[in-house]
Amino acid sequence: MKNVNPKDRSINVGLLGLGVVGSGVLKALTQKSALITKQVGCAVHITRILVKDQDKPRAVEVPKGLLTTDPSHILEDPQVHIVVEAMGGEMPALDYLRKALQEGKSVVTANKEVMAKHGPELLELANKNCVQLLFEASVGGGIPILGPLTKDLRGNEITAIRAIINGTTNYILTKMTYENMEFDEALKEAQELGYAEADPTNDVEGIDAGYKLAILASLAFQTKVAAKDVYREGISRLAARDFRYARELGYVIKLMAIARSEGGQLEARVHPVLIPKEAPLAKVDGVLNAVEVEGDLVGRVLFHGPGAGSMPTTSAVVGNVLEAASNIARELPSSSLITLDRVMTLRSISDLVTRYYIRVTVSDQAGVLAQMAAILGNLQISIASVMQKEADHRDQTAELVITTHPSREKDVQQALKELEKLEMVREIGNFLRVEE
Amino acid sequence: MKNVNPKDRSINVGLLGLGVVGSGVLKALTQKSALITKQVGCAVHITRILVKDQDKPRAVEVPKGLLTTDPSHILEDPQVHIVVEAMGGEMPALDYLRKALQEGKSVVTANKEVMAKHGPELLELANKNCVQLLFEASVGGGIPILGPLTKDLRGNEITAIRAIINGTTNYILTKMTYENMEFDEALKEAQELGYAEADPTNDVEGIDAGYKLAILASLAFQTKVAAKDVYREGISRLAARDFRYARELGYVIKLMAIARSEGGQLEARVHPVLIPKEAPLAKVDGVLNAVEVEGDLVGRVLFHGPGAGSMPTTSAVVGNVLEAASNIARELPSSSLITLDRVMTLRSISDLVTRYYIRVTVSDQAGVLAQMAAILGNLQISIASVMQKEADHRDQTAELVITTHPSREKDVQQALKELEKLEMVREIGNFLRVEE
Repeated sequence: MKNVNPKDRSINVGLLGLGVVGSGVLKALTQKSALITKQVGCAVHITRILVKDQDKPRAVEVPKGLLTTDPSHILEDPQVHIVVEAMGGEMPALDYLRKALQEGKSVVTANKEVMAKHGPELLELANKNCVQLLFEASVGGGIPILGPLTKDLRGNEITAIRAIINGTTNYILTKMTYENMEFDEALKEAQELGYAEADPTNDVEGIDAGYKLAILASLAFQTKVAAKDVYREGISRLAARDFRYARELGYVIKLMAIARSEGGQLEARVHPVLIPKEAPLAKVDGVLNAVEVEGDLVGRVLFHGPGAGSMPTTSAVVGNVLEAASNIARELPSSSLITLDRVMTLRSISDLVTRYYIRVTVSDQAGVLAQMAAILGNLQISIASVMQKEADHRDQTAELVITTHPSREKDVQQALKELEKLEMVREIGNFLRVEE
Repeated sequence: MKNVNPKDRSINVGLLGLGVVGSGVLKALTQKSALITKQVGCAVHITRILVKDQDKPRAVEVPKGLLTTDPSHILEDPQVHIVVEAMGGEMPALDYLRKALQEGKSVVTANKEVMAKHGPELLELANKNCVQLLFEASVGGGIPILGPLTKDLRGNEITAIRAIINGTTNYILTKMTYENMEFDEALKEAQELGYAEADPTNDVEGIDAGYKLAILASLAFQTKVAAKDVYREGISRLAARDFRYARELGYVIKLMAIARSEGGQLEARVHPVLIPKEAPLAKVDGVLNAVEVEGDLVGRVLFHGPGAGSMPTTSAVVGNVLEAASNIARELPSSSLITLDRVMTLRSISDLVTRYYIRVTVSDQAGVLAQMAAILGNLQISIASVMQKEADHRDQTAELVITTHPSREKDVQQALKELEKLEMVREIGNFLRVEE
């Protein structure tokens, strides 16, 4: 930890990146300087900003002298106490964060990819160098979630996290729910509104949500969960009719990130689920995010708010900068309270036990349900409900929607394989998990 | 701050009160001792418990030697590092907390009444004695709200707090909303279920919610808001028909605690409001609580969960105990980051500008609406909608429900007085504020 010279009491922040988040942080720290000085006990200044191009015209006003294209001007400057990383992406951000921590600087980052892939290594590096590594903005934008999880709720044994932590997909699913849109149409609208990128893979395939879940699960269960440990399915195979049928059954469809601990085993998965339409998470619509934490004492608490955007992300970053700066100003040792040393085995998705929704197109003739029920029954899969939908008289097909009682995923997967072989089964339309 | 003798590393907690919360805390700290030792860095033990009667049979198992009826055995014992107050009520809790802080002990309390009435004095006393005073459990039960407000969100200028922070009244209002019950019937059911006390005044008149709002507003706006500064109206004058009409207008009725800052002025009020049925707070049902925080950076974030009960309250208390114990174990100075020194003037309810719902019983004859509209118009109150409801042919009366555009409360109050004098107006049925 760099000590602050009491004669020249000012805490210096080096900012990496001046995109939407970086600009927001610059603006907030500048405009709120009186407030911040009062709260921290001394002034907090941004003294250097790393950019790719110093001459690029910018929406935010910034003294030319602050800009640099050389990362060492921040990472190796002994006058810089705190490094704020707002670049995003794995590289070179990871290298810069390593360097900053090694140089004894506290780090605040909004980088979910780096934290999901390299969080444990960086936290260890921070501990070793007695500095802070804070990353509230990496999950849920402006929603305070990592703070409450690691501080206020830490008397709890956390049993589950259920989260809607990708605004893009939640916007698309909300459109599909209320406006009966197909996926492609809803995606196109999200792209036109700037909620989805031209290449939407990261969002719609659940990669972004997987990063965030890895971070949440690591902190909640005090263990190392990496991005690659999270089972992932995206939302592109959802059809408008799945939303209609779900509604008739009393459910909505959400892309949910779920981590659950049971008997020392950990489940971590991101995929679309049917949830009861009265559940608090079912009511989280549009680009909003929400994280539900279940603990042995508290029961279920829900944190809900804007999960992205320049201003909300800035809120989280500035909160972390104030925390780091307060500690530096008060010369407190910065040993982290975060431990990730619990050993848990990862439960494979095939061992999941939950309820299922299966949509099948079948020949519209007698006996088909009996054949299907026999296959399910042989695999100990108990049927909870059957709906016959939308017979197509030209094709002589009908659509069956089956929901099951809690069953083991590998049995259900086996059943789907066997159902597919039935002559009367034209197509397995979709298969979704139900989260009660 | 008491230093911990490194030879005998154990942090000692004295517990005041062994009711539902006290018993929960005792159980949690005992059952979770391994986990806690790991997180804090040393053991945390409850070494003394103040009770009224040592011989009373108890649901929780407790070694006889721990119990005492003499508060000085805890408050004056130099071996006690942390005092947990779980007695409730203003006296003698206030005296005990003062004494504990003066003796250099950190204090964790769940006592909303004491904090709402004497928070600033106690916080100052804690600062003076370099100890911590933590009170997360005093608002919103298990929901982490004071922590996020004073830490994670502190880069924000908070502009408003809107909260449903009384489970009893929210249960009653939920029944009135969905089951068309009258107040007395819903209250009776709440009492039978143990959600409301035999004397329900504290809850139904908004006194409890007022305490909690005083605490929230003080921390959010960094100023001193006392319980007596909060304007209060209860829910007993609500009728089943108000809920029906609200629903037809697209609203639900909630008892809301609202604090808002505008131009250096502060509003703090607890009363029933109409809120749009799509608003996140409208969906908070039953005994659940929720607090919405609006900040200049973050926008709106909502914290939602169980606002009462032994286990959730224990979650908040234990979180605070861990925080205090971690600081003591690491020998950190315990200066609080909470400041309450901002000077704000309190805005009187008569200066409130909002929309209103007015229900009036009138003679069922021509011209009545014209007369009423004239009164409202003369006071610059602009009508947003009028519904004529439920004509009673025997009485020759009808019921009119008027909503207004934003108007000043004192004008609306004046209008109500003038409306009451009209011959054709039989009764002002109700008058409610609308929160958009």
